[in-house]
Amino acid sequence: MKIGVLGTGMVGNTLATKLVQTGHDVTMGSRDAKSPAAQEWLRSVGGKAKSGSFADAAAFGEIVLNCTNGANSMAALRLARSENVGGKILIDVANPLQFTEDSPPSLTICNTDSLGEQIQREFPQARVVKALNTGNCGVMINPSSVPGDHQLFICGNDAGAKADVARHISDWFGWKRQNILDLGDITAARATEMYLPLWLRLMSVLGTPQFNVRLAIGSKH
Amino acid sequence: MKIGVLGTGMVGNTLATKLVQTGHDVTMGSRDAKSPAAQEWLRSVGGKAKSGSFADAAAFGEIVLNCTNGANSMAALRLARSENVGGKILIDVANPLQFTEDSPPSLTICNTDSLGEQIQREFPQARVVKALNTGNCGVMINPSSVPGDHQLFICGNDAGAKADVARHISDWFGWKRQNILDLGDITAARATEMYLPLWLRLMSVLGTPQFNVRLAIGSKH
Repeated sequence: MKIGVLGTGMVGNTLATKLVQTGHDVTMGSRDAKSPAAQEWLRSVGGKAKSGSFADAAAFGEIVLNCTNGANSMAALRLARSENVGGKILIDVANPLQFTEDSPPSLTICNTDSLGEQIQREFPQARVVKALNTGNCGVMINPSSVPGDHQLFICGNDAGAKADVARHISDWFGWKRQNILDLGDITAARATEMYLPLWLRLMSVLGTPQFNVRLAIGSKH
Repeated sequence: MKIGVLGTGMVGNTLATKLVQTGHDVTMGSRDAKSPAAQEWLRSVGGKAKSGSFADAAAFGEIVLNCTNGANSMAALRLARSENVGGKILIDVANPLQFTEDSPPSLTICNTDSLGEQIQREFPQARVVKALNTGNCGVMINPSSVPGDHQLFICGNDAGAKADVARHISDWFGWKRQNILDLGDITAARATEMYLPLWLRLMSVLGTPQFNVRLAIGSKH
């Protein structure tokens, strides 16, 4: 499958590498089509992988993954351009986190809006699915690196797109289908993005990003 | 032990009832010292339990629990008055949630501040510990109603107060000490309060509030 991965940071690199390893044709997109990070990635994966601008990667992919820095995702996606994204599935992996020296990390968008919703509004034809944003990318591409069952949350307005994304995530990364939980429409992106401050605290306290949450459910009565 | 419980809603009622059942002397405080909800609660628990104003309950307790509606907690606590709270442990159970008809629930404070921090700033002498706010009150007072291990998060600026609260929560409600996780200073209240939108979505999808999260942790390498 042809996949466009927007972003050359740790998340983009990790997901794009795994997608190449599972046999997909990947173009990594960045602001600078000659991005040194993308060139380095190309050398590391070899073979048919390509790199280019955000627009190149969006035009290339049958599916587009937004792995850009969440605080800058809207700017990156505007460079990818609506006509290149069209009605494709756009998996939004980003979190609009902002790190400052003197206070805990915060979100640049939250509570009554979310990055997932902003993207869906900016690209009304795209079938935006928020996914893979509630854990370390190493766990997201290798769920068995954390013992037992644990959950991955997805949301979006298009039921068919969510079903496709759940199937892809299962095929690409090995997630059990029953551990992929659909939280509803794209407004649920508020919930999964607002979980990040807790995730960051837990990472700090546990001393590792290699964790996730498992739902423990009692009887209804 | 003498405990002041502020709030007559489901959370205050559930926690106060459990505290009476475990042998504590409880005064339930409300805005209206003759609150019908508090009178009804008194009839249901009988015995030595009392009710009164927020100030009465705060003055009575060796420990004070804020179980008021989070969006109104600051107003309630001001009625409880600083001289009645003094240097006591104040367990903040509330979440500043706001429910509207047309959009998902939101928080009245979040991201760069939290209710826990606002309370600590307003009552600088009090030893504020944020706790018991990341699950249904039925789960909070009866962790074994959810199968297996699952976590309860606490935070606050006073290490001694957190140790006391962890011990109390274990004694009062049966939490295993190793499942009570200290997330650090009171700014971590941002993280646990901002988890509520995800908790509410999960409740809706799972069809029950009887759940919690269990941390699944991989090896560090």
